[in-house]
This record gives sequence, structure tokens and C-alpha cells, in this order.
Amino acid sequence: MSDSGEPSGAPLFERLCLLGIGLIGSSLARRAREHGGLARTVVVSSRTEATLARVRELGIADVVEADPAEAVRGADCVILCAPVGANAALMRRIAPHLAPGCILSDVGSTKGSVLRDVQPLLPGDVHFVPAHPMAGTEFSGPDAGFATLFEGRYCILTPPPGADPAAVEKVREFWRRCGSMVESMDAATHDKVVAIVSHLPHLIAFTICGTADDLAAETREAVLKFAASGFRDFTRIASSDVDMWRDVFLNNREALLEMLARFSEDAHALGRAVRWGQADFIEDRIRRGRKIRRSLIERRQA
Amino acid sequence: MSDSGEPSGAPLFERLCLLGIGLIGSSLARRAREHGGLARTVVVSSRTEATLARVRELGIADVVEADPAEAVRGADCVILCAPVGANAALMRRIAPHLAPGCILSDVGSTKGSVLRDVQPLLPGDVHFVPAHPMAGTEFSGPDAGFATLFEGRYCILTPPPGADPAAVEKVREFWRRCGSMVESMDAATHDKVVAIVSHLPHLIAFTICGTADDLAAETREAVLKFAASGFRDFTRIASSDVDMWRDVFLNNREALLEMLARFSEDAHALGRAVRWGQADFIEDRIRRGRKIRRSLIERRQA
Repeated sequence: MSDSGEPSGAPLFERLCLLGIGLIGSSLARRAREHGGLARTVVVSSRTEATLARVRELGIADVVEADPAEAVRGADCVILCAPVGANAALMRRIAPHLAPGCILSDVGSTKGSVLRDVQPLLPGDVHFVPAHPMAGTEFSGPDAGFATLFEGRYCILTPPPGADPAAVEKVREFWRRCGSMVESMDAATHDKVVAIVSHLPHLIAFTICGTADDLAAETREAVLKFAASGFRDFTRIASSDVDMWRDVFLNNREALLEMLARFSEDAHALGRAVRWGQADFIEDRIRRGRKIRRSLIERRQA
Repeated sequence: MSDSGEPSGAPLFERLCLLGIGLIGSSLARRAREHGGLARTVVVSSRTEATLARVRELGIADVVEADPAEAVRGADCVILCAPVGANAALMRRIAPHLAPGCILSDVGSTKGSVLRDVQPLLPGDVHFVPAHPMAGTEFSGPDAGFATLFEGRYCILTPPPGADPAAVEKVREFWRRCGSMVESMDAATHDKVVAIVSHLPHLIAFTICGTADDLAAETREAVLKFAASGFRDFTRIASSDVDMWRDVFLNNREALLEMLARFSEDAHALGRAVRWGQADFIEDRIRRGRKIRRSLIERRQA
């Protein structure tokens, strides 16, 4: 196995099985098509016949299989790519059919829930290495994916305690070959970080769109007309996939509610300062925003 | 006077005075330099000697004058371009020196406050036509401006009842020649619309940056490292100018607090649905976000 992210002669896996073929799954399938180093054979399974038909039309898989239990048979790597809420049922369906020595991974945005849903059903001879590629667009479905989606983006692994080091290294190398920068942390830290970095911003974006939609007709018309950059940026992330985000919210409940509570307290404190004309307090809050922004720019995240 | 936004032989104003020379003021000065149709002579005044010196270096004004009372003398158009909180003091200073028949305008993001601060001090022979160009960047100061800032952006006029139609039309033409699409509405409607479209998103962005900054050191480090697109979009607008936004918040207090209250109720309703696992409610909120997004795309605002 090569240590570099460059294409290599021998593929990392013989038979890679993707369960779910939305933005992330179909980007992995395309990456495997274009990059010989990932897998010799790509097997794709999906819940609906329409999606399976589309995958056949797109020609992004070697094998298209409706039944997930059949799809995982003989695969040396299986990646769960459905919305995180589907993992428990999917796992019940596939667990008895996973090949001995198989590596099982996922791409979900919530990691505590994946441990909760997958770990108890895991056969003893299957290696479980959860992963979260921090990449996405506002589009979804098998047509939305592209081979370069993961390039230059972080992928966070949350291997459970006692995970097989060789399996972890193989998943790490898989994501390197997708072009990602790979990091590891425990699932609880991961869930807190994404709660504030991604889940809370999405909750806020969905909310403010609804708040605008509830305004009196005349004001709402003007809102749509004059949506300046502030609102526009918010609505971009609000256009995300319904099933995925419902599942994310429900499966990162504790961390998300904790961050929402902290944010609410802070928003109300700023609102109170506005009401009582506390200019110093307001200036301090604005300055902190600028400080965080500067940190991001220094880290080339902005 | 030409009805078109195209350059025209005769300038609209003989002597245009800009009080304040940040992003908006310096963009107007540059526009007037490059576009013969705006003003024959541009006079600039600013609060600090450093800024005045910089304006001289940049060569974006015909006359640079420290004293606003001197600056407005003989001008047939004066535009207040300082943060909105400076308007009352500025107006007390200049009111006795405004030329008869002069048009007084502004570029503030809050219009009720401008009526409140400026109207009572207005000499009877001066025409007051408030304006809000809905354009901006995250940068500020005289170096940040550029002549094309207003092109293709809305500019909202909020002429008070009984405003002189000829003066309103002249301000309208001024902004057309800056490349803007000009609309009119009353100050109260304007303030509600910008509260949700711009001011609340900024309050939220400043807040979430502070919330992230308050997290335990380890989590904060990871937040900065993994700031995905959601958080990054939020922080872009959080890097805005401190003085301007403090004044905006304090001068659109009622509308902003009203929108913050509506937003908070909606955010808590969504948080509650997450806590109690109400998938239907969550899906409905996400769908509304997507609907608003689609409306914006249809209106080419996104």
C-alpha cells in the first residue's frame, strides 16, 4: 500500500461497496472510476429503483444491486452513504452478510449516532472505521457528485477505541487518494465541533428563511426583492437536502441543542444590549466576529 | 436632465459634498471622477486628519475640507456618508450653512433614524431625500471604495411625505447614473425589510462567532480548523465595520428586536422539534428554506 495520495498501480480495495448513492456516494463512485488506486470493482446499492436505473445510465458503477445484503457480499470495503438515520436498519440488513476481514466505514455528519447504530451489530471479524468527509454542495442525488469533491477538504476519522490500526490506515489512505486531508478525533469531540461549525448554521439558515416567509405579504415581497448579501449567504446553505439534514439534526441532538442554547443566550445578550443602547458591548461582539474571521483567513479557511 | 443611466454631457450637480469618506463615500467620489454626469466638483470632508490626508493622496476629491460647515458651503447636493449615529451631530453642525435649494441626502442603512435625526433641523429651503444604496463589501475606509460598487444593486429612496418631486427625481437620476436600480418606499417599511434581510443576519453572524470563541480551548481550535462552508459564510459577513454596525443596530432598534424575537421563537420551535424527534416539523422547516432559496434564484438574487 502506497503512503502517498497519488494514483498507484494496485487498487486499495478489490471490491468496494457503496450503500447509498447521493452526492457523497456518487462522488466516491466517480473518483474510483477516474482513479485506479481506489478499487478494482465498485458495487452500488440504493433504496429506490429509479436511483438504481439512473446509476446504470450514468455508468458510474461496475455492479448495481438493489438488495444491500447481496451488494455487500464479498466486498472488502463497505461504505454507508445513506442519510445517517438509515444506518441502523441498513446495518441490521447487511451485518450477517459482511465478509470476514471486511472494512466497514461511513460518510455521515454525525459520529456518536453511527457508533450507537452500527457498533452493536458489528460481526467480530469486521473492522469498523467511521469517517466524515467535510465536503458538500447544495445539490444532492447521483447526478450531483463529481470526482474532485473531496480534494483539499478535511476528512475526519473517528475510529472507536481498539480499532484495528491496519484498517484505520487503509481508510486513511483511501481518503488521501480522494485528495483529502485526513484527521482523527473521538466521536464526541467531532459531534461538538460540527454542531457549531455546520449543524447550527444550517438550523439558523432554515429558521431565518421560515421567519421571512411568515412576514406579512407586503414585507415578504420586499424581502425577496432586496435580499442583500447577508440573507443570500444564509439561504445558500438553506437549500440543502431535506432527508440528510433531518437525520443530521435528529442524530446530533445533544450537541446541537447545547450549541443552540449557547448561541441563543449570546444572541439575546446582544439583543438586550441593542435595546438598552450598550454601545461598548455591541462593539465588543462585532470585534470578536472580526477576530474569528481573521483567524480563519490566516488558516486559509475563508 | 437625462432620463438614462448613461454618461451625459451636463453633470447633475455643480458641487457635490460628501460628508464621510468610507466604503460608500469613497465609491461615490470615484464614480464622480470616472463618470462626468454626476458632479462638476466633488468636496469631501471627514472627521479625522489621517483620513483627509489619505483622500488627498488618493486624489479622489477636488476639494478636501476638515470642517463640515465649510465643506457644505455652496454645494447643491450634500450626502451624509458617515455611520448613521453621526447624523444628528453632523446635521447640527451643517444646517445653518446649507445653501438655499440644496438637496440633502444620505446613504444610511436605517431610515427612520435619519428622519428623526435630520428632519427637525432641516432649513425650509433645503430638500431632504434619504437614500440607501444596498451595496457593500466586508471592507471599509477610503481605500476600500470603487467606482462600480453600485452597479446592478438596488438603491432605496425613502422621501418623506411632501418631498419636492424634482429633488426626488434628481436623486433618483444620481443613483441611476451610479448604475443602480432605484426603488422608493416609506422609511418604516424599509427598516423592517433591512432588519430581516441584512441586520438580523449580521447580528447572528457576530453572535455565532462569539459563541465559537467562548468554547473550551480544544473545541475552539478544532472549530477554526474545520470551519466548513456553513460557518465560513457566516463569518464573511461578521467581518464588517465596527462603527457602522454598532450604529445600524442602535438606530434600527425596534425593527431589529422585533425580527430577532420572531427568529428566536422560530429557532426554539425547531430546537424543540429536534429534542422531541418531530421529523415532520423539521422537514417542513427545511423545505421552507429551500422554497425561499428557489424564489431568490428565480429573481436572480442568489
